Amino acid sequence: MLGPERPIILSEAEKECVAYHESGHAILGLVVPGADPVHRVTIVPRGQALGVTYQRPLTDRYNYPEAYLRAKIIGMLGGRAAEEVVYGSRTTGAENDIEQATGLARQMVTRWGMSEKLGMVQLAPRQNNWVGPAALGARPYSEETAKLIDSEVARIIKECHDEAKRLLGAHRASLDALVAALMQRESLDEKEILEVTSLPAAPLLPNRPSVPDLAEDARFRDDRHPIGALTHF
Amino acid sequence: MLGPERPIILSEAEKECVAYHESGHAILGLVVPGADPVHRVTIVPRGQALGVTYQRPLTDRYNYPEAYLRAKIIGMLGGRAAEEVVYGSRTTGAENDIEQATGLARQMVTRWGMSEKLGMVQLAPRQNNWVGPAALGARPYSEETAKLIDSEVARIIKECHDEAKRLLGAHRASLDALVAALMQRESLDEKEILEVTSLPAAPLLPNRPSVPDLAEDARFRDDRHPIGALTHF
Amino acid sequence: MLGPERPIILSEAEKECVAYHESGHAILGLVVPGADPVHRVTIVPRGQALGVTYQRPLTDRYNYPEAYLRAKIIGMLGGRAAEEVVYGSRTTGAENDIEQATGLARQMVTRWGMSEKLGMVQLAPRQNNWVGPAALGARPYSEETAKLIDSEVARIIKECHDEAKRLLGAHRASLDALVAALMQRESLDEKEILEVTSLPAAPLLPNRPSVPDLAEDARFRDDRHPIGALTHF
Amino acid sequence: MLGPERPIILSEAEKECVAYHESGHAILGLVVPGADPVHRVTIVPRGQALGVTYQRPLTDRYNYPEAYLRAKIIGMLGGRAAEEVVYGSRTTGAENDIEQATGLARQMVTRWGMSEKLGMVQLAPRQNNWVGPAALGARPYSEETAKLIDSEVARIIKECHDEAKRLLGAHRASLDALVAALMQRESLDEKEILEVTSLPAAPLLPNRPSVPDLAEDARFRDDRHPIGALTHF
Amino acid sequence: MLGPERPIILSEAEKECVAYHESGHAILGLVVPGADPVHRVTIVPRGQALGVTYQRPLTDRYNYPEAYLRAKIIGMLGGRAAEEVVYGSRTTGAENDIEQATGLARQMVTRWGMSEKLGMVQLAPRQNNWVGPAALGARPYSEETAKLIDSEVARIIKECHDEAKRLLGAHRASLDALVAALMQRESLDEKEILEVTSLPAAPLLPNRPSVPDLAEDARFRDDRHPIGALTHF
Amino acid sequence: MLGPERPIILSEAEKECVAYHESGHAILGLVVPGADPVHRVTIVPRGQALGVTYQRPLTDRYNYPEAYLRAKIIGMLGGRAAEEVVYGSRTTGAENDIEQATGLARQMVTRWGMSEKLGMVQLAPRQNNWVGPAALGARPYSEETAKLIDSEVARIIKECHDEAKRLLGAHRASLDALVAALMQRESLDEKEILEVTSLPAAPLLPNRPSVPDLAEDARFRDDRHPIGALTHF
Repeated sequence: MLGPERPIILSEAEKECVAYHESGHAILGLVVPGADPVHRVTIVPRGQALGVTYQRPLTDRYNYPEAYLRAKIIGMLGGRAAEEVVYGSRTTGAENDIEQATGLARQMVTRWGMSEKLGMVQLAPRQNNWVGPAALGARPYSEETAKLIDSEVARIIKECHDEAKRLLGAHRASLDALVAALMQRESLDEKEILEVTSLPAAPLLPNRPSVPDLAEDARFRDDRHPIGALTHF
Repeated sequence: MLGPERPIILSEAEKECVAYHESGHAILGLVVPGADPVHRVTIVPRGQALGVTYQRPLTDRYNYPEAYLRAKIIGMLGGRAAEEVVYGSRTTGAENDIEQATGLARQMVTRWGMSEKLGMVQLAPRQNNWVGPAALGARPYSEETAKLIDSEVARIIKECHDEAKRLLGAHRASLDALVAALMQRESLDEKEILEVTSLPAAPLLPNRPSVPDLAEDARFRDDRHPIGALTHF
Repeated sequence: MLGPERPIILSEAEKECVAYHESGHAILGLVVPGADPVHRVTIVPRGQALGVTYQRPLTDRYNYPEAYLRAKIIGMLGGRAAEEVVYGSRTTGAENDIEQATGLARQMVTRWGMSEKLGMVQLAPRQNNWVGPAALGARPYSEETAKLIDSEVARIIKECHDEAKRLLGAHRASLDALVAALMQRESLDEKEILEVTSLPAAPLLPNRPSVPDLAEDARFRDDRHPIGALTHF
Repeated sequence: MLGPERPIILSEAEKECVAYHESGHAILGLVVPGADPVHRVTIVPRGQALGVTYQRPLTDRYNYPEAYLRAKIIGMLGGRAAEEVVYGSRTTGAENDIEQATGLARQMVTRWGMSEKLGMVQLAPRQNNWVGPAALGARPYSEETAKLIDSEVARIIKECHDEAKRLLGAHRASLDALVAALMQRESLDEKEILEVTSLPAAPLLPNRPSVPDLAEDARFRDDRHPIGALTHF
Repeated sequence: MLGPERPIILSEAEKECVAYHESGHAILGLVVPGADPVHRVTIVPRGQALGVTYQRPLTDRYNYPEAYLRAKIIGMLGGRAAEEVVYGSRTTGAENDIEQATGLARQMVTRWGMSEKLGMVQLAPRQNNWVGPAALGARPYSEETAKLIDSEVARIIKECHDEAKRLLGAHRASLDALVAALMQRESLDEKEILEVTSLPAAPLLPNRPSVPDLAEDARFRDDRHPIGALTHF
Repeated sequence: MLGPERPIILSEAEKECVAYHESGHAILGLVVPGADPVHRVTIVPRGQALGVTYQRPLTDRYNYPEAYLRAKIIGMLGGRAAEEVVYGSRTTGAENDIEQATGLARQMVTRWGMSEKLGMVQLAPRQNNWVGPAALGARPYSEETAKLIDSEVARIIKECHDEAKRLLGAHRASLDALVAALMQRESLDEKEILEVTSLPAAPLLPNRPSVPDLAEDARFRDDRHPIGALTHF
């Protein structure tokens, strides 16, 4: 999917930047309740990507709880969040993450009825490819609704971005440790990641009295699913 | 229409979630006046669907009373409503329901003159496929009218959503009983549903002095009709 | 045009609803000054229609007075108006009537200079098929003008809708009598309609001193014309 | 251009209405300074037209003074103005006149820099066919400019409409005389029109000291030109 | 480019109007600093044009100073300005001038960063053919920006229009003399124009201390360039 | 890429203007932290360009820090800034620079999450060719968001424009010296540029404690990269 490994010679500074970006994704995959398990992190370039974090459920899934979607967005924004927390600056490396996170947040608001302000109203076609041909033609809703969609999408993204930065700040030691290991070994598998970061396996969504017990549901941790199986730099 | 049954192995937690979603549709099919009779509920996956509630009138119909349309929307929103009432959370499982309910509410407002605020004015073409090619090009009405359409559609959806939650709360025992039976037997037919839920057959639209007596009109309960014959998860 | 008769078995309740809808059109064809004469009413299903009211002028016409156009719209809205007056509720049966009435009202405002507020300004192309390809592309007028068009169209429709309900209320006995006859005989011709309703032949537009005497102009009552020759359910 | 004469049998009332409409055009062609000379008026139907007023300059023209354009619009609105002055009511017969008058007024504002409020700014493509393919796509100006264009076009149309009604009121005797003659003879040529109406040949644009003397310029009265050579009912 | 000469017979009045229009362009070509030199003026019709003013630089140019562009716009608006100054009225003869002037002013604002209010932001594609296919689709900027573009374009046009009228008023004697000569001789070359108008050769852009000395740059006066090489009536 | 050298004969004034424009780009390439190194400056015309400044990194790059992007925009606006600082006037020569700078600023705001006001929300498709076919169709965001995008883009451009003018003012002596050398020698390589301007090699982005040390990263100074490798006049 990303193409073969490439013999790109990175400077130490660049490598570190990539390592922090990927580690941002990975750490959030470990500490955000409900996130897909992190199988591998690497800063060996491959195709267009300078680094990759692999997260994926074991089997197909058909139904996504809102909390899972937010966990997903928080993880996607973790690359940029790490750059901000560590360097206090931004790069273009988050472009792909921004695209995916925005796509998910828009669907929460326009197709899945997950905004109280907009309600259970469908506001976008099924193929939410809002930059493709399906987007041609006039919007089927008013400017006021468009404004509400924008502000709800921006709110979800901001909440997740803030949470990503907060969590990475709180787990800075694990983040630095993972980066140090990546700078040495370039690739780490799940076991090594857990070891290096001293973090437990990914926590599950908090149990509530009547919620189906996701902790007992191996599939909720392992599903191969079509949304953002990997985040690359 | 949904494809063959599929050997998908669901966890107990997932099964329960699907069962509550489908039971939400089914219970509302029993308690909302004028709803189409519920023939069968199942949580055996089939094609893309993890569960299906079958509701259908016996013969073709050509004319839909407003109360019938609202009953239909209430039932469509019953899957999500059940998740909210039981788990206090939301999943993406209602996507198809949201699409259908929005389509009906928009037609009530833009083609069937069922909004006092907009009056008997046609505001959308016959093929109300507002995400397809017919939607290309400029809107033939003003921003103010677009805003009114949006708020009327949102109002109908919200009223129906609230009613769905209220009714499921009021019939929680029947809902839980139906879910318990589904977790054991996976599929129930009409007779079993009535038995398990202790609910009478679907009530008809309330009689008013001069209204055609729908209770005597078998076709009003049994028509095979083109709108939302089944709601699936 | 509507296809052959069809062996659809309607319940008594459905038949009555169709009968009131068609009778609403027919009665207004008798009591609105300037309306086209009513030749036949039937509740025998034919093609997609469950009932049909036939109104048509005898010969071609080229010029339509504003009062004639309003008479036409009032008659078109008579099906729904009858349902509202009799049952206090609405069905989707008026969809086609709404489409035609909106089309006429829009042309009065955008092509025929019949709104004082907009003046003798053309605001739509000749083929006022605003839901077809001609509608593609940007509106050639401002949002403010769009708003004015919408409110003028809505005003005309509302005035005609109110007049339709007022007239049917005033002629309720004739309406009930026509329905009763239709429930028995299914189809009535012009002579039978006049007999059953005890109404005189369709009145003509009121004479004013200098207005061409339409009463003497047989063609004004009989023209075969291209606009809304029949209203069906 | 209008097709052959057609054997349409008109009632006296319809004939009179057509005669007033055409005479409205013709009288204004006689009394508005700068209007093209009226060669013929007829109420013999031809093609889609029930009556025709022929006005045309003798040779090609390339340059149109603003006063000439306003004279043209006033004449175009004369058909409807006559109906309003005489019957106090409106018909659809002015559709073609409205289309042409709007087209001219829009070009004055958007292509010929004749609105002080908008200035010498081009706001529409050369082929000002704003209902054709050239109109597809986004407006190249702001909503505020669109609003100004609309109000300037509406202002020009209203001023010309008011002037048309004022002039026909002031020349009511000539108008009635022309109608009476048309009802008898059906067609009148220029000489007969002048005789019947007791009006002098079309006045020219008022002389101003340094204006090129249009009175001496036969071509200003006789040009065959591409804009609205004839107005038909 | 304009086609062959045509045997159009113009009245004296029309000839004079054309002569003033062309002389307006020519005089401004003589008195506006930086304007391209005027090679020839003629009122012999050619193709669609009734008169032509030839202004062109000697060689190719690649870079246009803002002052040069404004000189160009002032000259383009000189035809209409002359009509207004002399006759106090307007004709359609300026249509082509308006199109060219608007095109230049829009590019100053949207492509060349010459509006302080909009800054060095590109707001239109390279092929600023805003009435062609490139203009299809949604505007890539907000309504507020569209409004600012419109008002900046209108401001530039108004400033240049006012300047054109002011200069022609100030040089009225030269203007009248050029028209008188054109009415006699129909065509004048550069030498004759200077003689008749008693004006010196076209002034150059005012020298400022460190500005490249345009006066020494023959190419600034003679370039053949792609923008508005000639203005015709 | 720019085509062969061309035998265009430039006046001294034009040459000087081109020299200042190119020197503006070059000086900023020397004094803005993080700018790509300047390899060569020339005022020998080539293809459509009258002068060229060559700046390029040595190897491919995949990730652009925000500070680098701003350095790039500042350099792009340096041609116009030099004209303004030196002549106090503007030419069309910056058209290409404006296009590139706007493109970068828009991507910072709409694809790379570099505006605090808009957040990490994707607001434009990947191929940010906002004037091409991808731009067809309706904007997928509200007018309010469009306004915010415009004002953020304009703000970035203005900040960079102001910085360009400030830096050229501060380094006026170096600017004049480079122009003087170009007027004599027409082309200068990196070594000659440094000599003539008495400026040190391009400074790097300021070190901050934890920032990857760009100074040690040769690739950050030498990458061949796809964005604006050269700015031409």
